[in-house]
Amino acid sequence: MRMIDEAALSDITLGATVLGSGGGGDPYLGWLLAREAVRTHGPVPLVDLVDVPDDAYIVFVAGMGAPGALLEKIPRAAEYERIVAEMESYTGRKIDFLCPAEAGGLNAVTPFASAAPTGLPVVDADAMGRAFPFLEMCTPTLHGGSTTPLVMIDEHHNTVCLSTQTNHWAESFTRAAAVASGASAVMALYPMTGSQAKQWLIPGTVTQAEQLGRTIREARDAHTSPVDAVLADQNGTLLFTGKVVDVDRRTERGWTSGTATLSGMDTFEDHSMVVHFQNENLAAVRDGEVIVTTPDLIMALELDTGEPIPAEEIRYGYRVAVIGMPCNPIWRTENGLKLSGPRRFGYDMDFRPIEELT
Amino acid sequence: MRMIDEAALSDITLGATVLGSGGGGDPYLGWLLAREAVRTHGPVPLVDLVDVPDDAYIVFVAGMGAPGALLEKIPRAAEYERIVAEMESYTGRKIDFLCPAEAGGLNAVTPFASAAPTGLPVVDADAMGRAFPFLEMCTPTLHGGSTTPLVMIDEHHNTVCLSTQTNHWAESFTRAAAVASGASAVMALYPMTGSQAKQWLIPGTVTQAEQLGRTIREARDAHTSPVDAVLADQNGTLLFTGKVVDVDRRTERGWTSGTATLSGMDTFEDHSMVVHFQNENLAAVRDGEVIVTTPDLIMALELDTGEPIPAEEIRYGYRVAVIGMPCNPIWRTENGLKLSGPRRFGYDMDFRPIEELT
Repeated sequence: MRMIDEAALSDITLGATVLGSGGGGDPYLGWLLAREAVRTHGPVPLVDLVDVPDDAYIVFVAGMGAPGALLEKIPRAAEYERIVAEMESYTGRKIDFLCPAEAGGLNAVTPFASAAPTGLPVVDADAMGRAFPFLEMCTPTLHGGSTTPLVMIDEHHNTVCLSTQTNHWAESFTRAAAVASGASAVMALYPMTGSQAKQWLIPGTVTQAEQLGRTIREARDAHTSPVDAVLADQNGTLLFTGKVVDVDRRTERGWTSGTATLSGMDTFEDHSMVVHFQNENLAAVRDGEVIVTTPDLIMALELDTGEPIPAEEIRYGYRVAVIGMPCNPIWRTENGLKLSGPRRFGYDMDFRPIEELT
Repeated sequence: MRMIDEAALSDITLGATVLGSGGGGDPYLGWLLAREAVRTHGPVPLVDLVDVPDDAYIVFVAGMGAPGALLEKIPRAAEYERIVAEMESYTGRKIDFLCPAEAGGLNAVTPFASAAPTGLPVVDADAMGRAFPFLEMCTPTLHGGSTTPLVMIDEHHNTVCLSTQTNHWAESFTRAAAVASGASAVMALYPMTGSQAKQWLIPGTVTQAEQLGRTIREARDAHTSPVDAVLADQNGTLLFTGKVVDVDRRTERGWTSGTATLSGMDTFEDHSMVVHFQNENLAAVRDGEVIVTTPDLIMALELDTGEPIPAEEIRYGYRVAVIGMPCNPIWRTENGLKLSGPRRFGYDMDFRPIEELT
């Protein structure tokens, strides 16, 4: 167990942006909330997954935005505090630990906004090891765990409590509620016991995000290459270095999809890359060949600063390093690929582990 | 207090179709469910509103269909039984009485499908005195009553519990949930005490529907005119007699809107009428003049049989009597008209009480 303070939160936020794999929602907004909560209430205990008692009661806390709402309507701290009591009231159980659903993007840090005011510790784990766009794309789904009971509060203080028969229904209902609300909302979901958490979750991913953020920060401070530092520190592979020469991006109902085309530089001179994205970066195609796909991670980092560039912000002229990282092995199982592989997103491609490249 | 058996249910269903004012959902489906429940569990007590104890706890039971789902996917009896326990669990209060939200259409009879298996009595009252398409168009809204806490169960056994800050939000969230479900659902909503019910609800409307149905049935049996019988028995006005010569109807997301144009017969020879509808019939225009609008009731009855013809079924060649009836006075207040008057539905018309015609 250790305490997460403002400085640690900043590193986690930067690292979570990288693990967001181009998506996952802008962590800056979650960071604003979590930082404010930690300033007001003090640092939050982060507990190793192995140290969580078997009979503890754990829930994820996550934000969900109505399409287009997240940027204009920042979720308020009050909802992040209240969601804990609402979930306890709906389930009739006292919550012992909070946990991020995803180590990538906005929701890597939102649990801290609930943890600080309620005094609850956060578990150093998540259910993706990255970011995915749908609620059911969580490791508990692969073990028969349920997204519900789930509670959602929006910034109008409307409350939706949900029990669904499948995790896919939970996704459908919460998405519909977020659209109906027209605002950003916070959810408590995937309630589980400590022993289930130990079987189901990916351990150490909050620390991984923090380490990733620290690596980039320290390289910047030392005026060395953050991209090289990330590759050395994490289990990463440099897929491409180049300049963005074309972006074809459509935004429909808050869903960003399209491609970014890169022209090679340095050792990739005379080569090309197309990154396909649907919120997250989902496939990297080099010289016409698919080299990495979801669920492995594909991240574009700005070449000089190492700043991760979200799919919705990448544009002509950016000089980037595209790096890949292997996903957690559970996503490479048959059921894992069914839930998160390229065909799940409509791409006619097979998954090919990034290790085959190297 | 009296018992509602199968025969009474049939009369209520026929009368509710008339009070549906061209809409309200097909009562036949509600009747199938309620009749089956009464067959299995026995007749249901119907209690006068004045006899409900002040401290009793009362909820409406109502079905809501996903657009297009109601006909293909008939709600199941099990959900109508279970909704009572789910609502008690969410609100933490024992329910004493059920009540229809609307005296017109499908939901005039659905409460009996919940009442029979649970042994609860039904209150002889409703919150519209007719049918309206939106949840918030209930008399409690005009008194500051809340649609929520509300529980919705769909036929997949997904459960949504809702607490919203306004009744309009409740409408938005439940509609979104019904669409997400893609199925028909049953709701318990507008919980209130007996003393609130006495202030808020329109008394005697289940009996009014039954009486209306009985009047039509008896006229048919006696081979006299059901239309004349309805006009004599109820506070009705004959607006027009004629043949449908044109129907302009659009159906979008389960919402039926358009116009039916009639050419006059008998005393209305050489006159014309256009009935405007959006689910319910909302305005009757005779010879170019608006003569009746929502919230007053406008019903098309087949001329020979008195069979009420829903807006979604009216078509070329039908010979109909169009009759009008005054709404409950509460709908004619300033707030009542704001919630249910013609401008609420986008018509550039003022409300004109039907009595001005006569």
